[in-house]
Amino acid sequence: IETKLPKVGTTIFSVMSHLAVQHKAVNLGQGFPDFEPPQALRDALSRAMTNGLNQYAPGIGTAALREQIALKTERLYGHKVSPDSDVTVTSGATEALFAAIAAVVRAGDEVIVFDPAYDSYEPAIDLQGARAVHIPLTVPSFSIDWQRVRDAITPKTRMILINSPHNPSGAVLSSADLDELAAIVRDTPIVVLSDEVYEHIVYDGVAHESVLRHPELAARSIVVSSFGKTYHCTGWKVGYAVAPPKLSAEFRKVHQYLTFCTFHPAQVAFAEFLASTPEHYVELPAFYEAKRDRFRNLLAPSRLKLLDVPGGYFQLVDYSAIRDEDDLAFCEWLVKEGGVAAIPLTPFYEKAPGTRLVRLCFAKSDATMDAAAERLCKL
Amino acid sequence: IETKLPKVGTTIFSVMSHLAVQHKAVNLGQGFPDFEPPQALRDALSRAMTNGLNQYAPGIGTAALREQIALKTERLYGHKVSPDSDVTVTSGATEALFAAIAAVVRAGDEVIVFDPAYDSYEPAIDLQGARAVHIPLTVPSFSIDWQRVRDAITPKTRMILINSPHNPSGAVLSSADLDELAAIVRDTPIVVLSDEVYEHIVYDGVAHESVLRHPELAARSIVVSSFGKTYHCTGWKVGYAVAPPKLSAEFRKVHQYLTFCTFHPAQVAFAEFLASTPEHYVELPAFYEAKRDRFRNLLAPSRLKLLDVPGGYFQLVDYSAIRDEDDLAFCEWLVKEGGVAAIPLTPFYEKAPGTRLVRLCFAKSDATMDAAAERLCKL
Ligand SMILES: CSCCC(=O)C(=O)O
Ligand SMILES: CSCCC(=O)C(=O)O
Repeated sequence: IETKLPKVGTTIFSVMSHLAVQHKAVNLGQGFPDFEPPQALRDALSRAMTNGLNQYAPGIGTAALREQIALKTERLYGHKVSPDSDVTVTSGATEALFAAIAAVVRAGDEVIVFDPAYDSYEPAIDLQGARAVHIPLTVPSFSIDWQRVRDAITPKTRMILINSPHNPSGAVLSSADLDELAAIVRDTPIVVLSDEVYEHIVYDGVAHESVLRHPELAARSIVVSSFGKTYHCTGWKVGYAVAPPKLSAEFRKVHQYLTFCTFHPAQVAFAEFLASTPEHYVELPAFYEAKRDRFRNLLAPSRLKLLDVPGGYFQLVDYSAIRDEDDLAFCEWLVKEGGVAAIPLTPFYEKAPGTRLVRLCFAKSDATMDAAAERLCKL
Repeated sequence: IETKLPKVGTTIFSVMSHLAVQHKAVNLGQGFPDFEPPQALRDALSRAMTNGLNQYAPGIGTAALREQIALKTERLYGHKVSPDSDVTVTSGATEALFAAIAAVVRAGDEVIVFDPAYDSYEPAIDLQGARAVHIPLTVPSFSIDWQRVRDAITPKTRMILINSPHNPSGAVLSSADLDELAAIVRDTPIVVLSDEVYEHIVYDGVAHESVLRHPELAARSIVVSSFGKTYHCTGWKVGYAVAPPKLSAEFRKVHQYLTFCTFHPAQVAFAEFLASTPEHYVELPAFYEAKRDRFRNLLAPSRLKLLDVPGGYFQLVDYSAIRDEDDLAFCEWLVKEGGVAAIPLTPFYEKAPGTRLVRLCFAKSDATMDAAAERLCKL
């Protein structure tokens, strides 16, 4: 069998998590917390199982959960959406991203992505027979040079895929960025796919600029988010997409044949928890900001140079004072000899720019951070 | 936005479940039990959450669950598979079917499917830019006319999609069928995709003829199954695929970008439950055979003609003595006026043959069956 995805191997997240176990390294690689989801959320899930909610959920998600998502969207972004026609629950954000791309992008189309880009985007585009057009973000701010975007637009451009807060850099888009984007897509058939899985993790008093705050963009965007990042349960695999009715209709056609529906008891639990405890996501920036600051303080004595972290739960570090080798080689050395698993940036690029940066996840307990920092400060 | 799936509306299962609620009908439509998964399984899931297994599972599934699947495959079908290279856990059988098709089938390819065919197959094929070639099963036995298959093979045939026990008819393939299939695909590049989600529900002392029993076929097949049907938890959305290493490698490339991984606590629970309670699936045929027989007895006084049910948990009935209209019209009438939701066969066909058959699910408690039968006997 000849492969349909010649550029794809095993995703870097699986590779590094595997190496971390093998070498008993502290795992700051794959993005997940090493602490637990709220007890009330777990209890609600167990209760849903007891209450007999173990059969198929509605394919588009339970009514109660879609309602909560719509309420939150209005409360946070001032954007009114209909739970019935605009909100679809998915088996994680990954499924939502794939379904959005499969629903909209056709063979021969072009999709603009910004490098470094999350590694699921391009294979999903490739599988449509379409082409990812890579625009590098400006380093070290990881901001978008909008002139480059304007120059990259062709009649084949079908989608622009943005991601804020950005993985791996943590960069966030501003309302000025959204205005630039809106001006570019105005009077074109371009759909915006907005990956906002870290929407509740933005620091220093800045508000997350969801495309849902921008009515013109909201009218032509599919916005993807995830409960895994917000509620410390990445293994529960519940995400969602918000899009206007026509886009949602196409999205749902694909979604119903990708997974049909998502684990039912977790949907019940999230609906209850969002209704009872909206303060969870309100308090999340402060929760992670304390972790970010603690981690940065711990690493201050190290020879790593710390880049700014405006959002998300990753710290980019420049290791050039420690070793002169590319980031793949450095991560391999680090997990084996340094006892810490990190994520290299090369797999996020079409053409790696040769920066000496790797990503460290700080969604970790104090003990894990301390253990990692002790090792990192020795390098 | 122009649709990529012009033939697709909302799946009939969602439509009928929605109508069932709306008209307070007894729901014998969408295929799910109205009883609960084993308490020990639910307890194991809650325990996994308590034990901190709430972050990403390995993308291919937990080692313990893949091990249990491999053990079961060897025990039941005498086929040795490697948990590491041959078994992949998915977010339900639907995801596994989509991933298999997306991994193997390319634009311009042909995929042979047998009508009536489960409604997710063709959209998944269409999204690859490929074409489903529909071969009708012989009615009323719903068996495969292998000469028609030989006649349909072209240089473009890339996959043959079989399904035994068959949904909606319950027909099962014999070892002679598998020999026919093996002779057809021998010396071709054709991959077999075998949907065996009802593998543990085969009646009258007959053994399920998995393609995994047939070494020549097993070497070129992707076999899909589901825990939802076997453990009475269709809403948990855990399935899996078994395929030889090279096919699994391609399957996994797609799977990792479709959903990445599956709800972690359920994987832990299934691994425990399969290890502790293998008798569950051993006893399943008798459990459902009693339901089948009870349901058929209840319907004996009705004017519905009951077709044979060799496997699965659906009863096909011929309603021509009651009303002279197509099955879509009959199901609409039945849910509104008769108070019972059924599934029409037309959505399972490229060209509906005009049979007067609808599908009733008997994975139901005695009370549900009694209520449905009372209504059906009045027609
Ligand atoms: C789906 S595994 C990767 C998790 C993640 O979002 C990341 O580490 O970037
Ligand atoms: C995924 S909803 C359909 C469930 C099912 O397998 C059926 O009813 O045939």
